[in-house]
Amino acid sequence: MALYVQKFGGTSVANPERIEAVADKITKFKDQGHDIVVVVSAMSGETNRLIGLAHQISDDPSPREMDVLVSTGEQVTIALLTMALQARGCDARSYTGDQIRILTDSAHTKARIKDIDVSSISEDLKKGRVVVVAGFQGVDELGNTTTLGRGGSDTSAVAVAAALNADECQIYTDVDGVYTTDPRVVEKAQRLSQITFEEMLEMASQGSKVLQIRAVEFAGKYHVPLRVLSSFVDGEGTLITFEGEHKMEQPVISGIAFNRDEAKFTLVGVPDIPGAASRILGPVSAANIEVDMIVQNIAEDKTTDFTFTVHRNDYQRVSKVLNSVSQDLGAQEVRGNSEIAKISIVGVGMRSHAGVASQMFDALASENINIQLISTSEIKVSVVIEEKYLELAVRALHTAFDLDAVEEQV
Amino acid sequence: MALYVQKFGGTSVANPERIEAVADKITKFKDQGHDIVVVVSAMSGETNRLIGLAHQISDDPSPREMDVLVSTGEQVTIALLTMALQARGCDARSYTGDQIRILTDSAHTKARIKDIDVSSISEDLKKGRVVVVAGFQGVDELGNTTTLGRGGSDTSAVAVAAALNADECQIYTDVDGVYTTDPRVVEKAQRLSQITFEEMLEMASQGSKVLQIRAVEFAGKYHVPLRVLSSFVDGEGTLITFEGEHKMEQPVISGIAFNRDEAKFTLVGVPDIPGAASRILGPVSAANIEVDMIVQNIAEDKTTDFTFTVHRNDYQRVSKVLNSVSQDLGAQEVRGNSEIAKISIVGVGMRSHAGVASQMFDALASENINIQLISTSEIKVSVVIEEKYLELAVRALHTAFDLDAVEEQV
Repeated sequence: MALYVQKFGGTSVANPERIEAVADKITKFKDQGHDIVVVVSAMSGETNRLIGLAHQISDDPSPREMDVLVSTGEQVTIALLTMALQARGCDARSYTGDQIRILTDSAHTKARIKDIDVSSISEDLKKGRVVVVAGFQGVDELGNTTTLGRGGSDTSAVAVAAALNADECQIYTDVDGVYTTDPRVVEKAQRLSQITFEEMLEMASQGSKVLQIRAVEFAGKYHVPLRVLSSFVDGEGTLITFEGEHKMEQPVISGIAFNRDEAKFTLVGVPDIPGAASRILGPVSAANIEVDMIVQNIAEDKTTDFTFTVHRNDYQRVSKVLNSVSQDLGAQEVRGNSEIAKISIVGVGMRSHAGVASQMFDALASENINIQLISTSEIKVSVVIEEKYLELAVRALHTAFDLDAVEEQV
Repeated sequence: MALYVQKFGGTSVANPERIEAVADKITKFKDQGHDIVVVVSAMSGETNRLIGLAHQISDDPSPREMDVLVSTGEQVTIALLTMALQARGCDARSYTGDQIRILTDSAHTKARIKDIDVSSISEDLKKGRVVVVAGFQGVDELGNTTTLGRGGSDTSAVAVAAALNADECQIYTDVDGVYTTDPRVVEKAQRLSQITFEEMLEMASQGSKVLQIRAVEFAGKYHVPLRVLSSFVDGEGTLITFEGEHKMEQPVISGIAFNRDEAKFTLVGVPDIPGAASRILGPVSAANIEVDMIVQNIAEDKTTDFTFTVHRNDYQRVSKVLNSVSQDLGAQEVRGNSEIAKISIVGVGMRSHAGVASQMFDALASENINIQLISTSEIKVSVVIEEKYLELAVRALHTAFDLDAVEEQV
């Protein structure tokens, strides 16, 4: 008999029928004798509908009032799900973020959780009740309604699980787990039964958007076992574990992430003087543009080439900034390219295995794929290639790192 | 410079355009130097949409969860209206029922207000802010969300006005005031510039549904001056006053109310024995049927006729109850009639004027309208007539009591 915090996202509660299916699922767990706390998002589409109403009224609505507005979405879901549970003879009770006092800072629309008072949840659980909590929302010290930012319901669930010291925080979503790579690109992609938090973070930030990064970080910090499962298909999902608990004979690479949302810029012939890099990136960051990879090689003939990647949507803005920066710096040329893709291999196993990077480069070379940029971290190697080779490259790497058969090996 | 509490109902805030029109109106008052607290309902249709969702999930949703659900309607409106005010450069702040602590009992879906903490409203007003409060909702001692029942936003507005000792509570609605009678029936019906609370209560309960009765009672109890105005047309509306403040030369009759929602039942030949009336009405009230008029005349030949009216929707149920009651009592016959109408003349002036009732009966007789039932209270005379004569009767009475020209006399 365990205590589970189960989070159901917007598509899982999109309409009354799906809410009833979720209630069936919860009732089954409850009947097995488990204690259940449920965290829910707004019905899918509802948050956008509310934001649409706000934008009909104001181009720049105040963050405080946006939070008052959009937090109604989750409030509707908790009431409906609680009704559905009660209609199944399952004692249940709903709570808004304010009512269980999910205390946050006052950074409206992107608040951070400071504390949760679980006393009323614990009392309800003792009485055998299922507790249904509105995700995404909280309250600040002054009693103002706050929200955690888009996708914040995952974070709410992890925070509630941490505060209750739950046995597992289960994130129900529309995929049945974390895969070695996107199954739409590689048919032989396999669901991972386990993945470490560090790997999950690298996979998530690289574009495998199963879980909100913040929720994963939070779960890692508070040592909350996290599991990703499907709302619609029964299965074990993927358990996100801590490295020490990982199995022996860990595969070197757990997964392959990729991303075609980036564009690449190179300043060619930048004078090799101290401060050049910051004179380039300073104006970029001042324009609120996020930079991903940054690569600079050693200088030759007192000049160097400086390359970085940004989100593809920022292409035009970055071009403008760089043209003026380039003149100031006396660089030879600015080259931009948005037809690129980034591929990363991720695995805690690579820490102890030499040669992972060269194995990656070999696999790409044998398909005649040229590597434009390379960047590495402790558990990740990323390369930038021409976009048209993306699928070919991902499939080649998936095979090269024995991922096609991961499940059979377990 | 006055302090006004202004309440805008669902049709006044039905969509973003109307919310912006309300914001324009409020900004104008604010610019005149008044302090404004606004109480709003849910956008029209929203409460029904939410109730519809609940009924897709449960035939008998728990009242606690219904309150969690439907209270989101007003929360959406306060956020949107506050955004609209801010977009006009008008400093404003929204509050849910919980946030300003509209403390109620725990009777979910029909809670009663016990107390309001106006300290934060007062502080905001001092800072020059418009305060926007969610109507219809409150919070109980345990922190549960409650609602006041349909139309409860009027009551919220009056309660806030009472707690703030406001100069006036202004109820904006889709009519421009209280009329001598329904203008759809009598073309010459006139807007009353004033009406007393007692008259308003009689008019409202008789079918002139401009204001929730509970709000009027509440305003009377706490001596809150109440004004009914149109959201869409400029004008003075109707001020609801206390009798002592009424003008001299008060017209005898202020208005004519009518109602075609009733049905009439008569038990003929009821033995004239003690307890007969309660043996008739006991089973009716046990079946949760509300009775309006009750008339019994003196007995003849040791039997009497017992007549009462109920809502027309209850006709079938009452018939069943009475057939068994009639047998038990040994009454001769049960007669039911749903083709009736009730007409009432209302006015505090009739207290000091004899002959009002006879003037009424004369007017009806001169049109050859037969009176089936008569019932009177201190400031009201009601009659039941055949439904087909309703319009004719109302017009005749409107003229007979000089109401066609009320406005010219002022």
